[in-house]
Amino acid sequence: MKTFFKVKSVAEVLDMIRRFPPLETETVALEDAGARVLGTNLVADSDVPEFDRSSMDGFAVRARDTFGAGEGLPALFEVVGEVFMGSVPTIKVGPGQAARIWTGGMLPRGADAVVMVEYARTVDQGQVELSKPVAPGENVILQGEDVAAAQVLLPKGHLLRPQDLGILAALGKSNLAVYRRPRVAIISTGDEIVPVGEMPGPGKIRDINTYTLSALIQSYLAMPIRLGLVGDNPAKLREAVAQGLDQAEVVLISGGSSVGVRDYTVEIFNSFSDAELLIHGVSVSPGKPTIMSRLGNQSLWGLPGHAVSAMVTCGLFVRPLLRQLSGRNLEEKNWGLTVEAVLTRNVPSVHGRQDYIRVRLQENGSGLPLAIPVLGKSGLISTMVKADGLIEIGLNDEGLLKGSPVEVFLFN
Amino acid sequence: MKTFFKVKSVAEVLDMIRRFPPLETETVALEDAGARVLGTNLVADSDVPEFDRSSMDGFAVRARDTFGAGEGLPALFEVVGEVFMGSVPTIKVGPGQAARIWTGGMLPRGADAVVMVEYARTVDQGQVELSKPVAPGENVILQGEDVAAAQVLLPKGHLLRPQDLGILAALGKSNLAVYRRPRVAIISTGDEIVPVGEMPGPGKIRDINTYTLSALIQSYLAMPIRLGLVGDNPAKLREAVAQGLDQAEVVLISGGSSVGVRDYTVEIFNSFSDAELLIHGVSVSPGKPTIMSRLGNQSLWGLPGHAVSAMVTCGLFVRPLLRQLSGRNLEEKNWGLTVEAVLTRNVPSVHGRQDYIRVRLQENGSGLPLAIPVLGKSGLISTMVKADGLIEIGLNDEGLLKGSPVEVFLFN
Repeated sequence: MKTFFKVKSVAEVLDMIRRFPPLETETVALEDAGARVLGTNLVADSDVPEFDRSSMDGFAVRARDTFGAGEGLPALFEVVGEVFMGSVPTIKVGPGQAARIWTGGMLPRGADAVVMVEYARTVDQGQVELSKPVAPGENVILQGEDVAAAQVLLPKGHLLRPQDLGILAALGKSNLAVYRRPRVAIISTGDEIVPVGEMPGPGKIRDINTYTLSALIQSYLAMPIRLGLVGDNPAKLREAVAQGLDQAEVVLISGGSSVGVRDYTVEIFNSFSDAELLIHGVSVSPGKPTIMSRLGNQSLWGLPGHAVSAMVTCGLFVRPLLRQLSGRNLEEKNWGLTVEAVLTRNVPSVHGRQDYIRVRLQENGSGLPLAIPVLGKSGLISTMVKADGLIEIGLNDEGLLKGSPVEVFLFN
Repeated sequence: MKTFFKVKSVAEVLDMIRRFPPLETETVALEDAGARVLGTNLVADSDVPEFDRSSMDGFAVRARDTFGAGEGLPALFEVVGEVFMGSVPTIKVGPGQAARIWTGGMLPRGADAVVMVEYARTVDQGQVELSKPVAPGENVILQGEDVAAAQVLLPKGHLLRPQDLGILAALGKSNLAVYRRPRVAIISTGDEIVPVGEMPGPGKIRDINTYTLSALIQSYLAMPIRLGLVGDNPAKLREAVAQGLDQAEVVLISGGSSVGVRDYTVEIFNSFSDAELLIHGVSVSPGKPTIMSRLGNQSLWGLPGHAVSAMVTCGLFVRPLLRQLSGRNLEEKNWGLTVEAVLTRNVPSVHGRQDYIRVRLQENGSGLPLAIPVLGKSGLISTMVKADGLIEIGLNDEGLLKGSPVEVFLFN
């Protein structure tokens, strides 16, 4: 009977993952840059806006001329013209003068503020009463107020949100460098597994992991390549792994977690030149039989076959690996991906093993939500469907007591 | 000077949105069903698994024969054969007998539990010592234990997560009905706006909203159709809206938020037969000039032109509309999309108006994170880039005091 050599802790595995360098960058059009990772620091090469702009409909004036104006005592202004949208006003605003202006219009020379149209009463063609004083700069977006030239606006490694595309648009970045998306080849194995479209004969079950793992990979903003199902046949499995290495940075095999099969998975991994077996068992539950071999900047992973174990190890190890390959800034705080909750029952664990427990969340009036453990074997995909997330029991803890505050790592 | 008629509250607008029916369903392949919305209740039409399966490598036995076995007193069993993966075992396990079995193997007749290989010591070809007692059902996944036939597993309207695809796979649903994704046509308008690829002349700025709004629409799992930039020209704008109505369920025009332009946006909306102007101003900041016209199950939206206002109103109104059109179960709790925080300064507001304030979050030791208001006019996209989310000040509140607990609605 074989035993695991050099079982790694979760922390050691994460440490290995951090040593993979990011992929190269590529250029994409701005409209395709949503949820991509910025490949260079974004530095503003011009002011935004490049001129003083009105932020309201109203009248451009010299602020000092409005001082003392009010509901009961409006100030009378001579209207010297109108600012047309998208053009440089030719008019100049002098003392006691006002120019009609629209939101986004360029402030005419002489003016330093805008009185909103709501506080204006037209006296005749050439005159307007303004009943509200404004300070210099009021209702105006000053040149460079949104973005000042030469400022670093977004750091390399930043995941681009909708508003980030907005600032890139404002600066005219119609193309930009982003990190390439990692590709992940996915292989399911096991003689007892049949494709989803087939009726499983006696003793067989359908392939679950191809679907759960590829959907997870997509949710991590990487590209799954489904290589399908391969029987417990070393030659065919090696062929599938070779195909994965041709097309992807990461190859996942799930299944074959029985001791015998696991051994030939290791042999297959070792059969590639320069393959370095780094992980052969992890002190984690579920997920103990995880295997990883590194080939330069590529990696081969043997994930457990059980549906829950495959998903948990994918989240625990493959997700941070893909963040690393994507060039993501790993220090960024992911606000909202966890929820504080209160555990509703005792959960035992074993010293020297890190445990991940499925929990579902339930509202609890005004208090913290309840984290209710979803019990069940790691072969039961239904337990993941019932759960909202996972809680962690540390390597040195022997369990968590009912009533303990816990941090729930949310799915998605 | 025109004033708004019938300004609506945010609650009234959301009420109107809830009256839109969901789109029709379509059939997609399982591998394309991630992040789609289930179009029918998922009912299990068979047990999963359809037979008792081992969840470990080891020996299948009659549990009662192991009672009393232990480290010091192993029980001796006759090995009657091996269960091959993916096939029905022909062997039968009688009293004092054991069959070698692998993870996922079908339990042979007679056996009701599995002793893990770690507790087995081979004596010779035909005999094994087992040093751990097991209960009936131990290390076995019983028929129907994962999913029992006829059970409703996932309700219609459920957003499919990776694990949900797993259970669909287990049941052999290689194709399934999901709601069609809503399509959203996006138009930017304003004579002062130029396309991103162009150098803005004096008095002009680049189109931001096309990019921020289409990235938001994608993040809401709907399909943006970018119709580009149209000048302040009623005929051309009407043509773009008509094109949008041909291709999409929702048409967004942003810009043209100055009073004059806003008026002809309403005229354009009204020029379509059966168009019903439902919203002409909302008591919200930013976002007051929002307009909406309904045409059957389609809707035309006039969003404010300011970059921040366009994004906030899109999140506030278009996001729930798209959830509604997508068939989403609106009662589902979105765990983790908000964060509790403490406000770091007084924020004034106005009674009778619902305010949305940009905030950035900062860690605060072991306490709740700090919500720091990001001040700045609603024309400054940089304020959205600096922010992590929004806080809401209710219709009847006149502001929030420094130190107040607040709920932050996170971006993404």
